[in-house]
Amino acid sequence: MYYIGIDLGGTFIKAGLVDENGKIILKDSIPTGKERPYQEIVRDMAMLVKKIIKDAQIDEKDVKSIGIGSPGTPDDKEGILVYANNLPDFVNVPLRTEIQKYIDLPVILDNDANCAALAESIAGAAKDVKNSVTITLGTGVGSGVVIDGKLYSGFNYSAPEMGHMVIRIDGEQCTCGRKGCWEAYASASGLIEQTKRAAMENKDSLINLLVDGDLSKIDAKTAFDAAKQGDETGRKVVEQYIKYLAEGLTNVINIFAPEVVAIGGGVSKEGEYLLKPLRELVYKDVYFKGEPQTQIRVAQMGNDAGIIGAAMLGKINA
Amino acid sequence: MYYIGIDLGGTFIKAGLVDENGKIILKDSIPTGKERPYQEIVRDMAMLVKKIIKDAQIDEKDVKSIGIGSPGTPDDKEGILVYANNLPDFVNVPLRTEIQKYIDLPVILDNDANCAALAESIAGAAKDVKNSVTITLGTGVGSGVVIDGKLYSGFNYSAPEMGHMVIRIDGEQCTCGRKGCWEAYASASGLIEQTKRAAMENKDSLINLLVDGDLSKIDAKTAFDAAKQGDETGRKVVEQYIKYLAEGLTNVINIFAPEVVAIGGGVSKEGEYLLKPLRELVYKDVYFKGEPQTQIRVAQMGNDAGIIGAAMLGKINA
Repeated sequence: MYYIGIDLGGTFIKAGLVDENGKIILKDSIPTGKERPYQEIVRDMAMLVKKIIKDAQIDEKDVKSIGIGSPGTPDDKEGILVYANNLPDFVNVPLRTEIQKYIDLPVILDNDANCAALAESIAGAAKDVKNSVTITLGTGVGSGVVIDGKLYSGFNYSAPEMGHMVIRIDGEQCTCGRKGCWEAYASASGLIEQTKRAAMENKDSLINLLVDGDLSKIDAKTAFDAAKQGDETGRKVVEQYIKYLAEGLTNVINIFAPEVVAIGGGVSKEGEYLLKPLRELVYKDVYFKGEPQTQIRVAQMGNDAGIIGAAMLGKINA
Repeated sequence: MYYIGIDLGGTFIKAGLVDENGKIILKDSIPTGKERPYQEIVRDMAMLVKKIIKDAQIDEKDVKSIGIGSPGTPDDKEGILVYANNLPDFVNVPLRTEIQKYIDLPVILDNDANCAALAESIAGAAKDVKNSVTITLGTGVGSGVVIDGKLYSGFNYSAPEMGHMVIRIDGEQCTCGRKGCWEAYASASGLIEQTKRAAMENKDSLINLLVDGDLSKIDAKTAFDAAKQGDETGRKVVEQYIKYLAEGLTNVINIFAPEVVAIGGGVSKEGEYLLKPLRELVYKDVYFKGEPQTQIRVAQMGNDAGIIGAAMLGKINA
């Protein structure tokens, strides 16, 4: 049996045919054209699925379900995408019935952070355990929790928003309205902001040289690159960033005690350069000091996490 | 069928016979005598259970199991109480086999915060829902999570230590070694400390009068009592305390989205005087602003929570 997964993003619609082990058989993508009416976008999603099924030389009846991962607030119970960041016309869109106008298959919705967590759980960094948390460090801090192989979303599907856990009361302004959320410190956006501030305060830092003096070119790699080349300002930015990351991650481990925490998103590409000092801080601070201990790993699914996780929604909902 | 629940505390051993709805049929207690060897204390626990069974005029075979709630770190898998705060001789005690020397019944172990959560879930403030979190504001901040009627403890039984979630990086020193844990601000101990500081800084505050100038008499009620009588210092202490409580509680709701959060422990006796402003702060800040929303309620089981929750361990493990 196969599963279709769709990763509905603001720039691309990616979709793939996935087997029950979370392996992609065939994938394809098209531009989202996000300014268009939702009916057009959904029709393109359906046509992309039809093309993949045809290209794979299988039949619609060989596909168990279509899973759709999106940003924002999908409501799987009602089959509605309530709201999706970056997709202006997707407000209370009946995504399930719209897709089913073209393809008669079950349609399952969930958000992108949950899909990433499910992908890591079934085919990635946490595939050897039943309980895991995946933290995605991107524009925001996404989080997904898998307990006994199932996604945990709370009674109203709004959890787990670990990025919106305040770690510094009255701290940095967060996009959610609160002050001091983990996301404001530990997201790629937070790191970029911290790097910019440090570059402005330290004109002679290598950071300024790396971006030709144009601070708008600073990205989530810049401070790491400067630090690796021995720049003191870069080193301090990275050290402070890892401390922020560790404070929230220690909270997550104290709260969930998952067997594995997988760290994904762009920043996680720093690999052990990030994880080694991160583990030192976390294991020094974590409440339970005994064995066995939560393992902290780099997420493995990369850009395919969205497709695979969305597809696997059909497996765990079976 | 009946269940025995034992609440093993530093001062008293309380035990009760409980029916499957979480109602106490008969209860009794004896002093712990905590300085004694563990063998003596465990024998007293067993004798107390035998007495209760006899007094209730039932038979051991009418009892399904004995549940024991304790502070510290019980390991139910191994049947061992690894460590219990306030009980000096309880280090790696084989509690299950020790009890079974006297009574041939299954013995189940869990910690007191989990027992409180289970009691609220089965017979108390959250008995109408399947997903709830219970926060106990005492010496520390205890927490227990019930998901689909079962306690969630993480893969190594160390979760959920929500009291040890940092809400202010580099903040107040916590007993766990970290700085800025929720417990350091929102526990009764934290409130007492905040009240003392305010009384010292404001010699003319009613707080000083209420304790006859003896700050060691300040308890978790003092600031509330002063505030209710119009004292400005008392009002500020209470206002700030509720803000600390709200910051952590908002985190908890963002992370778990439980249907109900029950607030227990001594401070919760303030009832709506505490919960009304608390709800205002939480609902203003919570990430998911839609409906349905997590309800915040006062815990109902009071001093019996330990007995009932411990007994009900036998029901949910069935």
